[in-house]
Amino acid sequence: MKRLFLLFASLGAGVCCGTEPFDVSDELSSPDGTLTLSVGLMGSKPCYALTYKEYDVILPSTLGFDLKDAPSLTEGFVTGRAERASFDETWEPVWGETRHIRNHYNELLVPFEQPSTGRSLLVRFRLYDDGLGFRYEFPEGCGLNHFVVAEERTQFAMSGDHTAFWIPGDYDTQEYDYTVSRLSEIRGLMDGAITENASQTQFSPTGVQTALQLKTDEGLYINIHEAALVDYSAMHLDLDDRNFVFRSWLTPDACGDKGHLQAPCVSPWRTVIVSDDARDILASKLVLNLNEPCALDDTSWIRPVKYVGVWWEMITGKSSWAYTDLPSVRLGHTDYAACTPNGRHGANSENVKRYIDFAAEHGFDQVLVEGWNVGWEDWFGKTKEQVFDFVTPYPDFDIEELNRYAHERGVRLMMHHETSSSTRNYERHMEEAYDLMNRYGYTAVKSGYVGDILPRGEHHYGQWCNDHYLYAVKRAAEHRIMVNAHEAVRPTGLCRTYPNLIGNESARGTEYQAFGGSKPHHVTILPFTRLQGGPMDYTPGIFCMDISKINPDNRSRVLSTLANQLALYVTMYSPLQMAADLPEHYERYPDAFRFIEEVALDWDDSRYLAAEPGQYIVVARKAKGSGAWFVGGVTNEEARTVKVDFDFLDSGKRYVATLYADAPDADYETNPEAYRITRGTVDAQSRLAVRMARGGGFALSIREAGEDEAALPAL
Amino acid sequence: MKRLFLLFASLGAGVCCGTEPFDVSDELSSPDGTLTLSVGLMGSKPCYALTYKEYDVILPSTLGFDLKDAPSLTEGFVTGRAERASFDETWEPVWGETRHIRNHYNELLVPFEQPSTGRSLLVRFRLYDDGLGFRYEFPEGCGLNHFVVAEERTQFAMSGDHTAFWIPGDYDTQEYDYTVSRLSEIRGLMDGAITENASQTQFSPTGVQTALQLKTDEGLYINIHEAALVDYSAMHLDLDDRNFVFRSWLTPDACGDKGHLQAPCVSPWRTVIVSDDARDILASKLVLNLNEPCALDDTSWIRPVKYVGVWWEMITGKSSWAYTDLPSVRLGHTDYAACTPNGRHGANSENVKRYIDFAAEHGFDQVLVEGWNVGWEDWFGKTKEQVFDFVTPYPDFDIEELNRYAHERGVRLMMHHETSSSTRNYERHMEEAYDLMNRYGYTAVKSGYVGDILPRGEHHYGQWCNDHYLYAVKRAAEHRIMVNAHEAVRPTGLCRTYPNLIGNESARGTEYQAFGGSKPHHVTILPFTRLQGGPMDYTPGIFCMDISKINPDNRSRVLSTLANQLALYVTMYSPLQMAADLPEHYERYPDAFRFIEEVALDWDDSRYLAAEPGQYIVVARKAKGSGAWFVGGVTNEEARTVKVDFDFLDSGKRYVATLYADAPDADYETNPEAYRITRGTVDAQSRLAVRMARGGGFALSIREAGEDEAALPAL
Repeated sequence: MKRLFLLFASLGAGVCCGTEPFDVSDELSSPDGTLTLSVGLMGSKPCYALTYKEYDVILPSTLGFDLKDAPSLTEGFVTGRAERASFDETWEPVWGETRHIRNHYNELLVPFEQPSTGRSLLVRFRLYDDGLGFRYEFPEGCGLNHFVVAEERTQFAMSGDHTAFWIPGDYDTQEYDYTVSRLSEIRGLMDGAITENASQTQFSPTGVQTALQLKTDEGLYINIHEAALVDYSAMHLDLDDRNFVFRSWLTPDACGDKGHLQAPCVSPWRTVIVSDDARDILASKLVLNLNEPCALDDTSWIRPVKYVGVWWEMITGKSSWAYTDLPSVRLGHTDYAACTPNGRHGANSENVKRYIDFAAEHGFDQVLVEGWNVGWEDWFGKTKEQVFDFVTPYPDFDIEELNRYAHERGVRLMMHHETSSSTRNYERHMEEAYDLMNRYGYTAVKSGYVGDILPRGEHHYGQWCNDHYLYAVKRAAEHRIMVNAHEAVRPTGLCRTYPNLIGNESARGTEYQAFGGSKPHHVTILPFTRLQGGPMDYTPGIFCMDISKINPDNRSRVLSTLANQLALYVTMYSPLQMAADLPEHYERYPDAFRFIEEVALDWDDSRYLAAEPGQYIVVARKAKGSGAWFVGGVTNEEARTVKVDFDFLDSGKRYVATLYADAPDADYETNPEAYRITRGTVDAQSRLAVRMARGGGFALSIREAGEDEAALPAL
Repeated sequence: MKRLFLLFASLGAGVCCGTEPFDVSDELSSPDGTLTLSVGLMGSKPCYALTYKEYDVILPSTLGFDLKDAPSLTEGFVTGRAERASFDETWEPVWGETRHIRNHYNELLVPFEQPSTGRSLLVRFRLYDDGLGFRYEFPEGCGLNHFVVAEERTQFAMSGDHTAFWIPGDYDTQEYDYTVSRLSEIRGLMDGAITENASQTQFSPTGVQTALQLKTDEGLYINIHEAALVDYSAMHLDLDDRNFVFRSWLTPDACGDKGHLQAPCVSPWRTVIVSDDARDILASKLVLNLNEPCALDDTSWIRPVKYVGVWWEMITGKSSWAYTDLPSVRLGHTDYAACTPNGRHGANSENVKRYIDFAAEHGFDQVLVEGWNVGWEDWFGKTKEQVFDFVTPYPDFDIEELNRYAHERGVRLMMHHETSSSTRNYERHMEEAYDLMNRYGYTAVKSGYVGDILPRGEHHYGQWCNDHYLYAVKRAAEHRIMVNAHEAVRPTGLCRTYPNLIGNESARGTEYQAFGGSKPHHVTILPFTRLQGGPMDYTPGIFCMDISKINPDNRSRVLSTLANQLALYVTMYSPLQMAADLPEHYERYPDAFRFIEEVALDWDDSRYLAAEPGQYIVVARKAKGSGAWFVGGVTNEEARTVKVDFDFLDSGKRYVATLYADAPDADYETNPEAYRITRGTVDAQSRLAVRMARGGGFALSIREAGEDEAALPAL
């Protein structure tokens, strides 16, 4: 069956990344035949290529590894006999965008053998209708036992100078604003794309992060990411911008090594999602499907959470995490009871009770309280190891009384574990910290990894820390605790396996709206990139766009309209949603706030109605176990009108819809808080043109109409 | 009181390490006036010097720090007003060489102020009759908060080309044989002094370790070490061999930094023990005195331990730690029950019972069992993190039954936690591991740190790992567990504060006698060097000197006579003593073994009768709470006769003494197992000439004579 196949000739498509022909030994089609994978050798190098319909997605691209103190696994290979399989299964996530997820692929397992060393490298390809996943496998008997990866040598050769939606490659942060540019422009734009962060380490002027969204001039959408990042370093992409070839670039450890593996083992899946319809990229479940099924026996305690928190007031600089203004404190040594409070401490019992009352009144599940525990006076940027103990409250935070007070009102407090990236310190206190949560009835923790990692020299996205994050999630599961880890590695679908990982940050969140603002197109890109791996705790819901009204010293403006903020609860899928603004701001706009109160967190179905990365996203979602639908739409810095077709509704039923739209004069720069609420009936035949202001959006709340609502006019 | 004092003129003694005069601002005398410390400035650099009687010990030597990203703390200083104090207290160690220890010193606290930065550096000097301790102090208000040490700049300027008893400076091991040479010869001898180890990192051709023993041509003994190494990197000494100036050289972290400090804090004490009588160096309690008092409320559970173990048979290669010959295993994945055993596993229940029976018969407290737990198939040198779980026995080790069996016979098993230097893995399992010990009645653990440290890039003696070792000791104390840590940092007297730290290795122990042998002078040097900081688990008591009789493939010979092996139980002070050889070897020489059975582990008094580093040591010790005395003497590769004066005995009492001496024809090379046992009476007037063979020694067991023993002849 082996045939010599000059792919660059056969595909008739431009650039080949090597000088040697691609000798294809195996081909694989997606279940619907839209995608075709070719696998074989380029010279003696393992090689693959991918097409979608008539388009090249990945030109012939080589595979392999450079090893430390051992011959490389990049060339000198012959192909062995490939194995084929097919799989089709529908599974039910604990929470998610849809009640059921279909996992349907054709599989090809290709053994590449290196006769000179007796070693073999297996590559398992899974081809879905919406893309490709492949991973390296090192089975027993592969000729490797313990080995050190100097670099993974996976190429993703692009067919041209595509448009990319990118952030700088960095070992320690993803909190960057996106740049949209041609691949050839990345190098020139890199310096401007790098903004300051508490911990950051770039590695290349053409290095970018995954999930990377691309668009070809032919209108093909390509998304490169990884799935099931376990016991391995996170992958970045370094671009050869003469040939438009991305190559994998792993996060190094403190010694510069990229990974420490022991056979039998596998790499994470490298994923290429592809479609000529941008909506398919958003709807793809490929990353989740490539993860292992749920590892927890009992998931009954895992529930979506809508929350408010003592947080935005610190982010904006109105109040402080720290209880004192001491320049330096020490766990177990500083006698806080004897210290002078700074009078600006946010997490004081009186203030927390105000948030609890607000949460109870408006039906929120939880109240996050940051800055409740001692240590915030000097907590990062100081190479300090013993920063927090996660169990000792500041003197003005009555942990027992506040939990009692909250529970009495049907609300729980949400725990906060800022680790300051001091991972050993966190692990040493973890059991006691989780025990304390169990004792007081906390069910969820927001953890944080601000600042440079300890152990020193390690990075946020390296194998060492990735192991730590997962360790924290597994240990939390033993305590029936849900985890929302900020500044941790970008998610790669592990929430399928560990659904108590209900959130991550791992991108530029709403906090940056108080740090100078994020570009309006940000929220039209994140669902294509960051959200491919799992939900983001984006913390939307800001109603007061002029931060100086909270803190006169902070001149930031939220670069979004209020209606856009509402839409985010639907466009940014997450089972964990915060209403991030101050209670008093919500009380100014109770009618708009109504949407945040009502919006669901878990869904039976999701329909992406319109999408273009960097421009707009419109999605409709059906609340789990209910006939209600919620629709959200966001635009970038351009105003636009979108047509909503309600054919997702059950035909024959009448619904009452409430539209939260930008007011006609709304504009994210000049009039961001102007909105208009309209109520009327819709059915499956309805069509609606909705105008979104610059930086704007809209939200729709739709429920089946009651008997007495028949007279309502159409929306 | 400030006066210009040209020290190199005033002391009339040779070399000054700087070109500037030493402007002495303060002087301090030891309580007996023998030592004099001068402190002041050399130019604008903090400086000190030390004399003993008419001898220079430390010529003017500068003090300070290079900091990372901050101006150095080495010059630009003026001296502030010094504070003086005196202290005299006697304390009682939980276990030790003497029942009481006197802590008697004069103190000088000198503030060095750096006007250009507003910072100050305090140095606290404590001058004892037997030496000097000083440390750096960074109090609140010193102008520093969090800071990173690029290097500590402490000099120890020698007055000449002294003789040194040294091992190569190394960040990861101290398991070297000693070299005796002039300071000027170190550079030329370094390459030959470096032998292979599972983890080793040298830093300089003139770098050596502490405790460093020196001897001047005038017969002065100088010992440089450190005390109370807490939250700091271990200090090495790098020699400027043109000027004979040692300078401090701290162990770096993975990023090359030497320490991460937060004021208020202090450095460890830098110690200089000095005498013109070598015996005083051995008797010094200066390092212990400079440590903090006991931190444990209850120490009733801490008891000296005499033990045997399933160990030497693995060290010699007769049996194996591993249960199988698999090339690679994984915790939780490898199904040992389904594996083929290799048939050489030492820690099998039947064999362990044999050791338990032996221990019970001969009055030993505990039986160490190494290789009892899964994971030994691929445990170091592979950058493997999840190596051991410390709780899962191999299928042939019945942990419940063996502990029951032992306890029934009045014996306990001793736990073994080899960490493979994977410190995070150990900490993650620590609580469960200690819990298991509590459950089965283990009271002591031998831990190990073989191989390169994980987190990668860290070193055995850096601040990160030093914190780990102490963490393990503190957590053990919570479980009433005693710790004997091998391959950990060299001890610095912390056993005063944490007396459950009953042993350490941190030097070349008896195991090397099965790895090719150690020089005979080794045991005449260790008490001057390694033992200054605390007891060593040296594991003496080898009775079969030809290792090939145990394992024909191992051609090593123990470079010691049998009488020398007995003497080590007295000369190498430790509350933890192993009889390391195989039971069957002890059964060959039951009369000699009698000494090991009888020798005490804890003492009311110790008298160093004769000592010369590298040549011989003779010490008499009085068993705690008993009138019995034990004497041990060892020599180097030269035979010699020592005269023992029994004036340490109570006058007017008669004693029965048993002498275990080298036979006349004994010789460590040609006839190592030849000994002669003599019994007779002694009293305080007795004198005895004892001949020690080459590589030999002797032991004496002395107890008050019974009524019926009056007729025994004199020894």
